[in-house]
Amino acid sequence: MASPSIEVALGERSYPIWITTSQADGSNPVDFASSFQDSVGSCSHAVLIHDAAIADTVANQVERVLAGMNIRVTNIQVPSGETSKSVAQLETIWNTMLGSGTDRQSVVVAVGGGVVGDLAGFAAASFTRGLRFVQVPTTLLSMVDSSVGGKTGINLPGGKNMVGSFWQPQMVWIDTQTLSTLPDRDFISGMAEVIKYGVIEDAEFFSWLKDNTGSLAERNPDALRHAITRSCESKARVVAEDERETSGRRAILNYGHTFAHAIEATAGYGVCLHGEAVAIGMQMAARLGIDMELCPPSLLEEQTAVLEAAKLPLVWKEADPDQMLPVMARDKKVAHGKLRFILPNRIGDVSLVGDVPAEKVIRAIEACRSMN
Amino acid sequence: MASPSIEVALGERSYPIWITTSQADGSNPVDFASSFQDSVGSCSHAVLIHDAAIADTVANQVERVLAGMNIRVTNIQVPSGETSKSVAQLETIWNTMLGSGTDRQSVVVAVGGGVVGDLAGFAAASFTRGLRFVQVPTTLLSMVDSSVGGKTGINLPGGKNMVGSFWQPQMVWIDTQTLSTLPDRDFISGMAEVIKYGVIEDAEFFSWLKDNTGSLAERNPDALRHAITRSCESKARVVAEDERETSGRRAILNYGHTFAHAIEATAGYGVCLHGEAVAIGMQMAARLGIDMELCPPSLLEEQTAVLEAAKLPLVWKEADPDQMLPVMARDKKVAHGKLRFILPNRIGDVSLVGDVPAEKVIRAIEACRSMN
Ligand SMILES: NC(=O)c1ccc[n+]([C@@H]2O[C@H](COP(=O)([O-])OP(=O)(O)OC[C@H]3O[C@@H](n4cnc5c(N)ncnc54)[C@H](O)[C@@H]3O)[C@@H](O)[C@H]2O)c1
Ligand SMILES: NC(=O)c1ccc[n+]([C@@H]2O[C@H](COP(=O)([O-])OP(=O)(O)OC[C@H]3O[C@@H](n4cnc5c(N)ncnc54)[C@H](O)[C@@H]3O)[C@@H](O)[C@H]2O)c1
Ligand SMILES: [Zn+2]
Ligand SMILES: [Zn+2]
Repeated sequence: MASPSIEVALGERSYPIWITTSQADGSNPVDFASSFQDSVGSCSHAVLIHDAAIADTVANQVERVLAGMNIRVTNIQVPSGETSKSVAQLETIWNTMLGSGTDRQSVVVAVGGGVVGDLAGFAAASFTRGLRFVQVPTTLLSMVDSSVGGKTGINLPGGKNMVGSFWQPQMVWIDTQTLSTLPDRDFISGMAEVIKYGVIEDAEFFSWLKDNTGSLAERNPDALRHAITRSCESKARVVAEDERETSGRRAILNYGHTFAHAIEATAGYGVCLHGEAVAIGMQMAARLGIDMELCPPSLLEEQTAVLEAAKLPLVWKEADPDQMLPVMARDKKVAHGKLRFILPNRIGDVSLVGDVPAEKVIRAIEACRSMN
Repeated sequence: MASPSIEVALGERSYPIWITTSQADGSNPVDFASSFQDSVGSCSHAVLIHDAAIADTVANQVERVLAGMNIRVTNIQVPSGETSKSVAQLETIWNTMLGSGTDRQSVVVAVGGGVVGDLAGFAAASFTRGLRFVQVPTTLLSMVDSSVGGKTGINLPGGKNMVGSFWQPQMVWIDTQTLSTLPDRDFISGMAEVIKYGVIEDAEFFSWLKDNTGSLAERNPDALRHAITRSCESKARVVAEDERETSGRRAILNYGHTFAHAIEATAGYGVCLHGEAVAIGMQMAARLGIDMELCPPSLLEEQTAVLEAAKLPLVWKEADPDQMLPVMARDKKVAHGKLRFILPNRIGDVSLVGDVPAEKVIRAIEACRSMN
């Protein structure tokens, strides 16, 4: 039995993340079936919830392996896109689960990106007050971010991720081969979170990224496994210190995100991808850090070089502080209207900084309207 | 500062239950405001979710006290009745919470019976992945049963309590005075669960009940506080041993319930109240225990006397084993189709008994078609 790539340390809720690459002939150096058995234990019924985009590929493969283990599979397809993280979709899933005889011994298996992972995870957390749950993320973002940390949930009209729960999976199964069909724009968007981990708490990984964004862009399997492993380790470390967002440590994961949320909201949701907004937000945060004299100008140069190599956008022509500031003041991460940001000290180290003067925030936004 | 009637011991999720009686002039020997402050901590916004039946009485009082503490209150009224435990009602609550600026610092206060407690509890558990929660139960059943143990949830069409989560309140506030408006039938129904605790694990309390069902029926405040305290203590002991239904200990709370669920299902939901079905189910379980030679016939006589004094039904003329057995085989508490029952050994002690012969179950059901 191979040993898992990562063991997320959360006491009795600990679980393994497997980071593998299946071969052209479909074989995989690690066996999904035995890993599943090992982490999940006995299982006679699985509810496979999958994204329509990978119905005929990954979801189909997973279904066949489960069937081969004598597991009865209830297959639920979810339309691609953020709008599936809705009450209506969740209700459909709950009713389908009930109708197909799902009980406390059933296991939910999510196959897809962050949308399906968040939605299926909340269905697992809530059906009969909690079912075992396995994640098979198929986007770069879901591999390095949403599948680690236990946050699940759906959106309400007017509020993203407003409803959900903390629910840890029994195992996460990552096969880099599934990324071969992911559109470039989604892949590149996921790279923003990868690079973020380097800046916030892993300087060595950041150095590695300087030399390897090219191989990653070509989706080289060895490079992918390394980058995904380091990213998951990074997130798992932060989450293990602050599982339920009580100590404040988890906030460092929001580097670039206060700006990004304001960019997404003012651009209109769906206009830019999340990772694209995060990249621009990281640039704004770095500029703000320099203006606050927390970090040297060289940090911005280094970050710019890596984001650029990953083909991420670095500027947003329409950036309008008058529109973005009010959004930032309402952001969940902003306590009582005071502007707080995660700002860099140096590559690999950031801090939560409160009481940031509005005029410096405005300057940071304006500076990211064009390359200069 | 008075000390709480009960401290439910669940590690960092421990919380107090206050069991009080407010006076005719509205004063109470224990102060709600300071108990709230003590258990909940700082709070500037409360979401008060209440049953329409007590809108002008208890809910109104609670709202005034909260307002007097400078807490902004968002008041959400729920129509009376089991049908409010629905996805539609939950969605309305979630949207109202979002629209009224509910955030992670808000506190949900549930005022009503088990329906509102279960629904509001799940809303609290899921909104922004978990808000603080206070229960103000106003039915006997919710005081002695649903407000202790952390189970929250809603129904799906065709499945009761299929969706929900384990979510513990910060405090439970019980004022026996609120029972003064509860219809007799609901009050009597709640008595079944009270008597159940005596049979399953508190023989001394059972003896006390022999002499005090009369005072309870008259809603004597001293008798009520004693009975509610003993009942909550009983349930809290069982729950503390098995918070998430993993060890099996929590199953003893289902004494009489496998039969009761089959009675409710075959009679048609809503025809008999839950406690009425439980009383008849306890009689069936006692007969089955005698038939299995687990307990003496005197146990049935003692149980009959107390249930009868509480004015609970003891027989069900239409009891039909052919209809009830298939339902029991599907019951969540029945593992893999084998009939398992909680059966009495003696007053104050029950066991989980597996592999009960179907013919004995049939005899127990038939024996409860009439008094004999
Ligand atoms: N739970 C968390 O901690 C967390 C963290 C970050 C983001 N999120 C959530 O994740 C979601 C975004 O995740 P995402 O970026 O994966 O979006 P996504 O799930 O919408 O996937 C992006 C697109 O790729 C498609 N797709 C998925 N896998 C594919 C594959 N292998 N080949 C081809 N196409 C594929 C999807 O159909 C979709 O169109 C958001 O809802 C966000 O809120 C959650
Ligand atoms: N969470 C748990 O552990 C648990 C345990 C047992 C039962 N339950 C649930 O509890 C629910 C039943 O609870 P219930 O019996 O309290 O029912 P309920 O909440 O429907 O209340 C019964 C009736 O009394 C009315 N009412 C409530 N308080 C009143 C008052 N003070 N004066 C006058 N009328 C009043 C209500 O409007 C309703 O018509 C069921 O949904 C059941 O599934 C949950
Ligand atoms: Zn992000
Ligand atoms: Zn009951």
